[in-house]
Amino acid sequence: MPSEEHRNASPAAPHPPTDTAEEAIWLWTQIKAEARRDAEAEPALASYLYSTILSHSSLERSLSFHLGNKLCSSTLLSTLLYDLFLNNFSTDPDLRAASSADLLAARYRDPACVSFSHCLLNYKGFLACQAHRVAHKLWTQSRRPLALALQSRISDVFAVDIHPAAKIGKGILFDHATGVVVGETAVIGNNVSILHHVTLGGTGKLGGDRHPKIGDGVLIGAGATILGNINIGEGAKIGAGSVVLIDVPPRTTAVGNPARLVGGKEQPTKHE
Amino acid sequence: MPSEEHRNASPAAPHPPTDTAEEAIWLWTQIKAEARRDAEAEPALASYLYSTILSHSSLERSLSFHLGNKLCSSTLLSTLLYDLFLNNFSTDPDLRAASSADLLAARYRDPACVSFSHCLLNYKGFLACQAHRVAHKLWTQSRRPLALALQSRISDVFAVDIHPAAKIGKGILFDHATGVVVGETAVIGNNVSILHHVTLGGTGKLGGDRHPKIGDGVLIGAGATILGNINIGEGAKIGAGSVVLIDVPPRTTAVGNPARLVGGKEQPTKHE
Amino acid sequence: MPSEEHRNASPAAPHPPTDTAEEAIWLWTQIKAEARRDAEAEPALASYLYSTILSHSSLERSLSFHLGNKLCSSTLLSTLLYDLFLNNFSTDPDLRAASSADLLAARYRDPACVSFSHCLLNYKGFLACQAHRVAHKLWTQSRRPLALALQSRISDVFAVDIHPAAKIGKGILFDHATGVVVGETAVIGNNVSILHHVTLGGTGKLGGDRHPKIGDGVLIGAGATILGNINIGEGAKIGAGSVVLIDVPPRTTAVGNPARLVGGKEQPTKHE
Repeated sequence: MPSEEHRNASPAAPHPPTDTAEEAIWLWTQIKAEARRDAEAEPALASYLYSTILSHSSLERSLSFHLGNKLCSSTLLSTLLYDLFLNNFSTDPDLRAASSADLLAARYRDPACVSFSHCLLNYKGFLACQAHRVAHKLWTQSRRPLALALQSRISDVFAVDIHPAAKIGKGILFDHATGVVVGETAVIGNNVSILHHVTLGGTGKLGGDRHPKIGDGVLIGAGATILGNINIGEGAKIGAGSVVLIDVPPRTTAVGNPARLVGGKEQPTKHE
Repeated sequence: MPSEEHRNASPAAPHPPTDTAEEAIWLWTQIKAEARRDAEAEPALASYLYSTILSHSSLERSLSFHLGNKLCSSTLLSTLLYDLFLNNFSTDPDLRAASSADLLAARYRDPACVSFSHCLLNYKGFLACQAHRVAHKLWTQSRRPLALALQSRISDVFAVDIHPAAKIGKGILFDHATGVVVGETAVIGNNVSILHHVTLGGTGKLGGDRHPKIGDGVLIGAGATILGNINIGEGAKIGAGSVVLIDVPPRTTAVGNPARLVGGKEQPTKHE
Repeated sequence: MPSEEHRNASPAAPHPPTDTAEEAIWLWTQIKAEARRDAEAEPALASYLYSTILSHSSLERSLSFHLGNKLCSSTLLSTLLYDLFLNNFSTDPDLRAASSADLLAARYRDPACVSFSHCLLNYKGFLACQAHRVAHKLWTQSRRPLALALQSRISDVFAVDIHPAAKIGKGILFDHATGVVVGETAVIGNNVSILHHVTLGGTGKLGGDRHPKIGDGVLIGAGATILGNINIGEGAKIGAGSVVLIDVPPRTTAVGNPARLVGGKEQPTKHE
């Protein structure tokens, strides 16, 4: 299946408690321990790790500070963005649970991810996704100009362009992330892995509900272009470089330009 | 036709007067009204909207300020860039007419574009195109090092790499825009829509005039790669993910890798 | 061969001495002369050219200053990065020789490159590659958190994502460069040309040694996706938009999705 990048959990990765509240505490404890270890081993990074992680009292404060610094500009100040992110992460447990699930997804599904702090500090796909979740909440609250300003900053800074109306589940890995485009009426399920240069777009023929719906557990390879209001079923795999214009059944693989189905675990059929 | 994104005018979009001078005044009046409305509805954005739009006396001043802030660096100062952009926009009515036409193109051809100020502030494709127009003028005035420095900043900041020698018409929509590459001898007509990750490049075989010529009204889907000194005729459509190495006649669609022609409105032929 | 961009040396480009130490001195003399000429012709750039080139006593100081300024953030200071780059370039002749070879590669293989200073100041592919070489050295010294922080900044600023463990030869041209992704166990030989949006990735099936090995003198066209621990032989050409999942013999061309071989200079065979 021509997708891209490694789906195997790094065997050394520690596993969290199953309770959500305990998981968040466990995760933040891990992140601080990692940052302390790295600051000791690499004094050149000590000040950076202090300001981004070790000086903060919680994951949501660390994340809000980091996002505010990354996304600010000379006219959109980091203090405004910090307050905006912190206010949303502090008051919305769903946002926090999604951040935790995304950190775990990167750590366990990407063997190049060596620690939770590595993802928190360095993965622009993770950071773009967390900022999008806040933009999406603002969109649903009819704070659209602010949501669109955030979308624009995320696209400038991370080269990831997700419309704030798009709905995205938990446990998402945007790997490498450069060039990802997700349209206004797209829906992405839980535990989805999306490589760089992936487009969930429209066909240019229709307005309204015009973007793909991606089921749980789908893997979308690098450079795949999925267009139109079509369904990509649970556990499907979309090959790198595919151009997908048709529904893809659950647990089925689609490859090529235009994409054809090449069988699945349950129904290993082969259609031309 | 597998392109991407929505080509239908948003029905609520107001239409400008047909006279060019009146159009520019009308457009700037619309933009200020939109910014005032958004600043009232969203106090968090009031300061941002004041500094980028409401404090300025004209569209060219607002645009020059915004571009200067976006493209500046610690060694290429925003004041230098502001003066450069304003001097060019103020003295060249063609540049101003092209900016207006591009704003209208985004507003009427992209249903995700909710207002003119949305495009002016947030569309990196629009901003990259306006900065390119100034770089192109500098290039034709033999101010090549400055033109190339601008190209580089546009590529860093917007991930859009347009050679300053490339000729681009009016009414252009660069939708999403990440990863667009336009070579030195490329020519793009009027009212063209180009999605993200599109390359207008060379084949690697020749120097000199080596890049595509794109006719009026062409639509180029996401990720299409068009290579060589070939002609894409008026009103042609290039499918997403296509690799196009041959001329495409007017009003004809090309899809696939390598691209084949799949008919057109006037001559619905099908060539392999 | 559908690749992209022009491989012909600009006939006016001056050629360096063959001795490596003399070459570096010759190159820096050329760069300063170019910067002086451009500063005289374009007073708006004089201050910029002084701070980036003319105020420095060597190519490694100029390059370290430029990289530090480009890659710094409010939490990762330019002074720290400048010291890090300069310390590495000053003490490692291999890093300096690679920078020189990459400057020559851009000047002689990309006809759009008008001078060495044009590449040094403006080519994000060149800058990303030099920063990667330092990140790779840190990685081999087990300074992994710092290497990963550099990788992340290079990906944010240049939209080029190269894992610090990846091994890259000399005389490399990353042309346009936006969206390039190079995985952890990839190896790139000498005198390789890689266009934008190229992925050297994994197939998603395996951990361990899972990325492509690219031979000397290979040319990889725009948007090509090369996946898995496969060999691309010396002098091979990979067409734009190809999805390559198989070994490609030396001096052979591969095109299409999935890619097929279309012959080579020595064995003009054609396989389906």
